[in-house]
Amino acid sequence: MKISLRDAADRLRKMEDVYILSHQSPDGDTLGSAAALCRALRSMGKRAQFFCSDEIPEKYDYLFENLEEQHFAPGNIVSVDIADVQLFGKRLSRYAERVDLCIDHHGSNTGYASDYVVCPEAAATTEMIYDIMQFLGVPIDTASASCIYTGISTDTGCFKYTNATPRTYRIAAEMMEKGVDAARINRLMFDVKSRARMEIERRVLDTMEFFLEDACAIICVTRKMVEESGAGEGDMDGLAAMPRQVEGVLVGITLREKEDSVFKISVRTTRKIDASAICVRFGGGGHPAAAGCVLQGDPQTVKQRLIEAVSEEMRGI
Amino acid sequence: MKISLRDAADRLRKMEDVYILSHQSPDGDTLGSAAALCRALRSMGKRAQFFCSDEIPEKYDYLFENLEEQHFAPGNIVSVDIADVQLFGKRLSRYAERVDLCIDHHGSNTGYASDYVVCPEAAATTEMIYDIMQFLGVPIDTASASCIYTGISTDTGCFKYTNATPRTYRIAAEMMEKGVDAARINRLMFDVKSRARMEIERRVLDTMEFFLEDACAIICVTRKMVEESGAGEGDMDGLAAMPRQVEGVLVGITLREKEDSVFKISVRTTRKIDASAICVRFGGGGHPAAAGCVLQGDPQTVKQRLIEAVSEEMRGI
Repeated sequence: MKISLRDAADRLRKMEDVYILSHQSPDGDTLGSAAALCRALRSMGKRAQFFCSDEIPEKYDYLFENLEEQHFAPGNIVSVDIADVQLFGKRLSRYAERVDLCIDHHGSNTGYASDYVVCPEAAATTEMIYDIMQFLGVPIDTASASCIYTGISTDTGCFKYTNATPRTYRIAAEMMEKGVDAARINRLMFDVKSRARMEIERRVLDTMEFFLEDACAIICVTRKMVEESGAGEGDMDGLAAMPRQVEGVLVGITLREKEDSVFKISVRTTRKIDASAICVRFGGGGHPAAAGCVLQGDPQTVKQRLIEAVSEEMRGI
Repeated sequence: MKISLRDAADRLRKMEDVYILSHQSPDGDTLGSAAALCRALRSMGKRAQFFCSDEIPEKYDYLFENLEEQHFAPGNIVSVDIADVQLFGKRLSRYAERVDLCIDHHGSNTGYASDYVVCPEAAATTEMIYDIMQFLGVPIDTASASCIYTGISTDTGCFKYTNATPRTYRIAAEMMEKGVDAARINRLMFDVKSRARMEIERRVLDTMEFFLEDACAIICVTRKMVEESGAGEGDMDGLAAMPRQVEGVLVGITLREKEDSVFKISVRTTRKIDASAICVRFGGGGHPAAAGCVLQGDPQTVKQRLIEAVSEEMRGI
């Protein structure tokens, strides 16, 4: 049943021995939500423990400071920031059908839980945890405030994305007044890159080429580069954004080698040019500013075909 | 004379034909302050015009939208975000001794103006312009709000630096409610890099080497790289931060070739290791987390000397 934030607080008040589940490939929002909720429930005298299918990256350690592990059988199960049971991951999949309450901000939430509260207008699920803590009457201490701030900051790309609302900024301000070291958190979340990420970035940057009077930039990510750099999927995030970031580039294209002579193509454009129209020509599709398709052939031919398509699309502007 | 923000508003109220001066190598804060103040004064029926010694980079065009140029002799002169007359730049240096009012947030302000208001606790000078507009009773429209938001966002590194306070976030929230497209501004300010910047970055990334069990990373910026990439000083900002951004690196070092066999050294460290202690060994100095010195010799020898010094400093931790 779809319920309100206030109802969610009521449900939580009645729970005992709560398992809190985060999604696989965990990020600052699912972990910040889990840690803050865990702290809230424990402060109410309940037993509560967070779980995640995947290992939690070291940089998130501070979220769980002083939250020593508790061992108990689950009385109730709550999921945070998980839109779909697919995202529970291997270790937690056994709980997928047993979730009592889901707290999430993804409009795409599939409503898999007995009760679910979904607020797509919230920039982060931790914004919802903030509201729920008010309804629960649980004071927000510095540790919980750090969790809430982390979810907000990571899910808005440090206040860079369109999802950050004035309310998001004001909650962040309130968390800082509770003692959050926002600069430290943001440095940790945004200024640190893995060695593998650095290694893949420098290889990929070296492939950047410019076409159509520098209005089109193309990078190429080969399987060899991925292997040499030791990059996992998490290290590949945002690589496709790199060509479009160069001043004057209207169309940024990324070729990612999937198998011999097969490339996954990502196209990023400015508002003027329709990325989706470019990809539809090759049987792909997407959004006006970000689209994709798959092309076969040697890299030079693939690039040439893409440049021709871009050139034709640009003729219209 | 040192005056308050309220007094500054009173002074402005009495001014006519106002020249507003920004500092050389202009950034989002000096330009946002100038454009917002210019709009405020014009809305009060005054003539006002902003000036800058250097050309204004294209990405700031939106700050000046619908502010057509006015031509008049200066009645009063106001400087914004300029800590020292040295920063007026060549074209504006003639006004350095004639400034009626200086509005600035740099604690280091030299007090060169007849009246000056300095608020080091403000993250950006536009925070002060926000206050002054309240005192003036001038409504903040979307265009002025964009200027104020821009100063805040750029001077806090998109809310990443320690100078961003809860009040900073709340002013930003209020500006968004006045119609500012914050995501667009932040994309423009932070996600676009010049072609020259991209070119220098890829050359520099290729030089990154790791030492001391990967706890120390070193990059080298040669004059040839700078020349080949066409990078100006503005394109070099933050390059020295790159080695320290790699996960696990405690000491990041940048060698910048100044002349044959002469290197300017930048050292960036985590809290555990004293960058200044490393540089003092070579006659340099600085802060605990960021310091510098100059070393002579071939790059290999220079690196070796630095690595030895870092190794000795690390022994203490």
